Amino acid sequence: MNFKSDNEAPAHPAVIQALVEANDGFATAYANDRYSRRLDECFSALFDTQCWVLPVATGTAANCVSLAELSPPWGAVVCHRQAHIHNDEGGAPEFYTHGAKLVPLAGDNARLSAGDVGAFVDAAGVHGVHNVKPSAVSITQATECGTVYRPEEIGALAEAAHQRGLFVHMDGARFANAVAWLGCHPAEITWQAGVDVLSFGATKNGAITAEAIVVFGRPEWLEGMERRRKRGGHLLSKMRYVSAQLLAMLNDDLWLALAGQANQRAAALARGIEQSPHAALEWPVEANEVFMRASPDKLAALKSLGFEFHIWPGYTDLARLVCSWSTTEAEVANFLTALDSATHNTSPVKA
Amino acid sequence: MNFKSDNEAPAHPAVIQALVEANDGFATAYANDRYSRRLDECFSALFDTQCWVLPVATGTAANCVSLAELSPPWGAVVCHRQAHIHNDEGGAPEFYTHGAKLVPLAGDNARLSAGDVGAFVDAAGVHGVHNVKPSAVSITQATECGTVYRPEEIGALAEAAHQRGLFVHMDGARFANAVAWLGCHPAEITWQAGVDVLSFGATKNGAITAEAIVVFGRPEWLEGMERRRKRGGHLLSKMRYVSAQLLAMLNDDLWLALAGQANQRAAALARGIEQSPHAALEWPVEANEVFMRASPDKLAALKSLGFEFHIWPGYTDLARLVCSWSTTEAEVANFLTALDSATHNTSPVKA
Amino acid sequence: MNFKSDNEAPAHPAVIQALVEANDGFATAYANDRYSRRLDECFSALFDTQCWVLPVATGTAANCVSLAELSPPWGAVVCHRQAHIHNDEGGAPEFYTHGAKLVPLAGDNARLSAGDVGAFVDAAGVHGVHNVKPSAVSITQATECGTVYRPEEIGALAEAAHQRGLFVHMDGARFANAVAWLGCHPAEITWQAGVDVLSFGATKNGAITAEAIVVFGRPEWLEGMERRRKRGGHLLSKMRYVSAQLLAMLNDDLWLALAGQANQRAAALARGIEQSPHAALEWPVEANEVFMRASPDKLAALKSLGFEFHIWPGYTDLARLVCSWSTTEAEVANFLTALDSATHNTSPVKA
Amino acid sequence: MNFKSDNEAPAHPAVIQALVEANDGFATAYANDRYSRRLDECFSALFDTQCWVLPVATGTAANCVSLAELSPPWGAVVCHRQAHIHNDEGGAPEFYTHGAKLVPLAGDNARLSAGDVGAFVDAAGVHGVHNVKPSAVSITQATECGTVYRPEEIGALAEAAHQRGLFVHMDGARFANAVAWLGCHPAEITWQAGVDVLSFGATKNGAITAEAIVVFGRPEWLEGMERRRKRGGHLLSKMRYVSAQLLAMLNDDLWLALAGQANQRAAALARGIEQSPHAALEWPVEANEVFMRASPDKLAALKSLGFEFHIWPGYTDLARLVCSWSTTEAEVANFLTALDSATHNTSPVKA
Repeated sequence: MNFKSDNEAPAHPAVIQALVEANDGFATAYANDRYSRRLDECFSALFDTQCWVLPVATGTAANCVSLAELSPPWGAVVCHRQAHIHNDEGGAPEFYTHGAKLVPLAGDNARLSAGDVGAFVDAAGVHGVHNVKPSAVSITQATECGTVYRPEEIGALAEAAHQRGLFVHMDGARFANAVAWLGCHPAEITWQAGVDVLSFGATKNGAITAEAIVVFGRPEWLEGMERRRKRGGHLLSKMRYVSAQLLAMLNDDLWLALAGQANQRAAALARGIEQSPHAALEWPVEANEVFMRASPDKLAALKSLGFEFHIWPGYTDLARLVCSWSTTEAEVANFLTALDSATHNTSPVKA
Repeated sequence: MNFKSDNEAPAHPAVIQALVEANDGFATAYANDRYSRRLDECFSALFDTQCWVLPVATGTAANCVSLAELSPPWGAVVCHRQAHIHNDEGGAPEFYTHGAKLVPLAGDNARLSAGDVGAFVDAAGVHGVHNVKPSAVSITQATECGTVYRPEEIGALAEAAHQRGLFVHMDGARFANAVAWLGCHPAEITWQAGVDVLSFGATKNGAITAEAIVVFGRPEWLEGMERRRKRGGHLLSKMRYVSAQLLAMLNDDLWLALAGQANQRAAALARGIEQSPHAALEWPVEANEVFMRASPDKLAALKSLGFEFHIWPGYTDLARLVCSWSTTEAEVANFLTALDSATHNTSPVKA
Repeated sequence: MNFKSDNEAPAHPAVIQALVEANDGFATAYANDRYSRRLDECFSALFDTQCWVLPVATGTAANCVSLAELSPPWGAVVCHRQAHIHNDEGGAPEFYTHGAKLVPLAGDNARLSAGDVGAFVDAAGVHGVHNVKPSAVSITQATECGTVYRPEEIGALAEAAHQRGLFVHMDGARFANAVAWLGCHPAEITWQAGVDVLSFGATKNGAITAEAIVVFGRPEWLEGMERRRKRGGHLLSKMRYVSAQLLAMLNDDLWLALAGQANQRAAALARGIEQSPHAALEWPVEANEVFMRASPDKLAALKSLGFEFHIWPGYTDLARLVCSWSTTEAEVANFLTALDSATHNTSPVKA
Repeated sequence: MNFKSDNEAPAHPAVIQALVEANDGFATAYANDRYSRRLDECFSALFDTQCWVLPVATGTAANCVSLAELSPPWGAVVCHRQAHIHNDEGGAPEFYTHGAKLVPLAGDNARLSAGDVGAFVDAAGVHGVHNVKPSAVSITQATECGTVYRPEEIGALAEAAHQRGLFVHMDGARFANAVAWLGCHPAEITWQAGVDVLSFGATKNGAITAEAIVVFGRPEWLEGMERRRKRGGHLLSKMRYVSAQLLAMLNDDLWLALAGQANQRAAALARGIEQSPHAALEWPVEANEVFMRASPDKLAALKSLGFEFHIWPGYTDLARLVCSWSTTEAEVANFLTALDSATHNTSPVKA
């Protein structure tokens, strides 16, 4: 049973069906097809404001094309020290920005605070060209620790950033999970709160490979973003298949339904862990990721029973459990049962 | 009827079917899935030699990750002045190589000659660090003009390159069409002729979005290529869907069947054009692209009848007609009939 | 006797004296010293308009910091195929621009024509993001072949560029020689003709290491240029010594006197070559460089007598002879005497 | 009286004299002159081992050309969080390395420890291409806080680095001060301790603008370094003037004499501060920099008396006082007298 990553789950049947339907006949290449051309309109409706959308195949592409537009090569991008862009993209942001510096800050529950960001920026850049120039703040929603920024937190962060001349980017690889958990309108945690550009993730949420760069309010960024997407090799010739996935996810709010379902499984998992004498939650469970403290022996025993999950880097006793749209109630129940029954004596622990 | 681009054609049903099948259950992320892990073996069998494969989603990514490994930032990449990497990738090679210089050379039928390449390299770089350093030759097979390098031409080019310390890259966006037309073993025009790295294209040939970087003989390049793929945002989390497409294309030599079919349509188109008093072939038709000279009025008349094709940049009287695996005999026949009957008087020409 | 390069000549005593004087006491670091702070004013007086100046140590730095501001990474910089930026800077423009493409055009006497530039730009970029974007024209004054653009030629070029949204950069490594030869006001071939940024060279003209980026009309470029200069490692901590050289060159129009003197020597050399039966001029001599055709044997014989000069890359019978401020009438006379008397029989030719 | 920076002091007369002498006649351009060609030999003698030297004009160029050779674009360079390369070079290392990540670590007295570096590297890079790859350690000697690494500390750091496949770079902007204070042979804190590349600084120590990249043991790095120097615009055409400064500094160990003199002044300053009731030393004074804690009012009072120094970024009560070769005993005495007598009541504090 796989709790390793929502990236390992299959795509939702509706996405597959959309691909099959999109395969009908010819379509103009390079994002001028009938699917891609509808994205601006559909996302504008979703977000209840005019926005502009660039489809891409990966979250890294979405994040990096965005950041490269928000920060000059001599810029600094403030992020949490748990940020995916800082730890897990192999230096892609530095590549796309031509060498901007990512500045990792601390913050409880993987969330930046407006105060910390403001204080950092106020102290930085005082030596002019000798320092890099704080240019953007990037926050992850839901965070890498499975927590969620509240609308007012984002608003405060964005205000602190904008007052100091920085733009705000949101890495929304699990944006759907955050919206589902908050029960808010997607506008409330994006443009209404001051987010300038959103990487809207669909891949982890049930698509095959589909992400969207959503630009709020500043169409002047589009030319550079389109150029950077092309130069990055991310302007797919047959973009219709990416855009069709995005449209399928927006259709009837499938994106919210799938994320909500994954969140429910994670919540059930969290409740069970809280009640277990063998484990504890590391961070509040507000999306589809559960971080569970347990003894290394216990974790090994669970793995030996076929449960797959990641041991968090730098720890031996912290497991990350991810639920996807396809995680079943039975899988959660099985895991919880095993958590309380599995012992490290019963079977040799696999390497 | 669409002769604009093989990029605009639908994917072949077998590719769609492969996607559907690949959607079964969980699969390890980031190209460690059961499909991606088979690529080395399957391509090694296809090419009859040990080779290593990195799947990517676009031809630009395949070309640029490859070139960045073959050329340092201060290098020069020799290519034909019609080369896609020079004209149509928006500067992506310069981005991935961190500023290497593409050196466009002339050559009949969009093909470089060993003599020209050798002469260029011998004259270049004589001033040491003041000059960029010729580092790689990139050839396109089939070429951008629909012609095909013969094995001995590639052998001569590669020998000229290797003797001078340059590596050889092949942009094989339409590699299948070249192999199908030559009727040779794929090894004959790649590693046996001296090609070091191949961008193996499947997208134009009937896939959705699937290309492969095929490395011959030098596994020491893999680390850098994998790093560059990641930094470019091209290590898809759900790579299984790309790799499954590649495997589907290799299965039962579907790749060759589809390309052969497209070539046959192009050949039929070419024969008709040769016999028409209204048009002429610009270059020999050796793959699935047909370049047709005709009067601007004639071209406009054809467009007004619903035939879609590109007017070649820099010309008013040169049309590019591309056949795909899905082009039918009837479409070819219709076009040829229209070519001889369409007149610019019958209807107002659309803008 | 050295006709190899004005880069090999000593500095003028007035420059040395300026350095000695600048060494008096403390001075603020990083271009905030009493010399650097005078540059804007002094150059504004020289050019008879408000301009802004960034001192740097090399012409490559001046050119590349400028071009990186005028062209985005996906831009194209149009230049002559003889351009120093294209042939002799080891890819530095590509490095500083983060991968812009230099587009070399032909043109008589190493000069671009407005018509050719306009035609190129009109044909380029028609495919949007698939093409690089023509962004700047860079011309060299005096050119790499020792010729000089007339004010009206520059005006026409700049008009062609500006109409199409391109900026105009002038590589003025030998700007002084051009002004001295034209006998014009420096404004006439720069801002009045439409030049946006000038690399004002002093090094070849008798300084040790001193160049100036002169920005006309657009102070909004300064921030980026200052950032790029810093990131390139060209914001010297003890910039006073560079700026003092520039001020010394401007003082009493020393820059024009030195260039005029070098030009006179080159003109004398040219007259002698024209009258010689053994040699011929390749290009009009309008600055301090003389390109002389002579038999390889003749050139070897001259070298064996101790005359130093470059054989032009790609030729065996074309010598470049450069006069500097320090070239004497006697040296010119000696050369001309040797040209007519030296034979390849008299002595074994040195390797 | 200027205690702001050794960058603001004049050059030593022997350096000026060397420049004047180097101005005699012609010299081959681009570091092939009679001075530059002697550098390898002279530095090899100084370091008592074969080494290779690239002269450059700035410390940033020396550091960044070096780091770009030691780290791939996807690499990580470990440094102290006070490191000049991280804080004060405006992102130049990211520019030259094409986007490598600088990883700032803590450490007492601005010194990295072998244990911390080892622990960081052991925890980093465990996720392969998803992480950046630790590639080099850069240490500053003397440090940004005026302290000095002992030979055995460097040896331990280098061993920790080399065992893990990282190279070791030393930013020696104040290398002379460290050697003078340690009283050791320069070999003991460089190649004998495991340093692979040294940025040997002369500018702060009494030169005008002269630094040297010193490569120990690995001549295979030279080609890349020379290419990067050229592409950075740091291959000065008249390099003789830089190299002559370096030779003048090495001559009769002038470099050590000047640094020793500056260190003595700093030591005297430190002794006075220790004895003052109004101030305290922040860090041990082991080179030519003194970090003095005093009340903001006291610091303002000293400034109002004409003493120039920097308030350290992030502090209001910490002053950096730098002594140079030209600092006199009287200046030190005056400062110490003022420290104890100056009051913030006597005069309005200047802004």
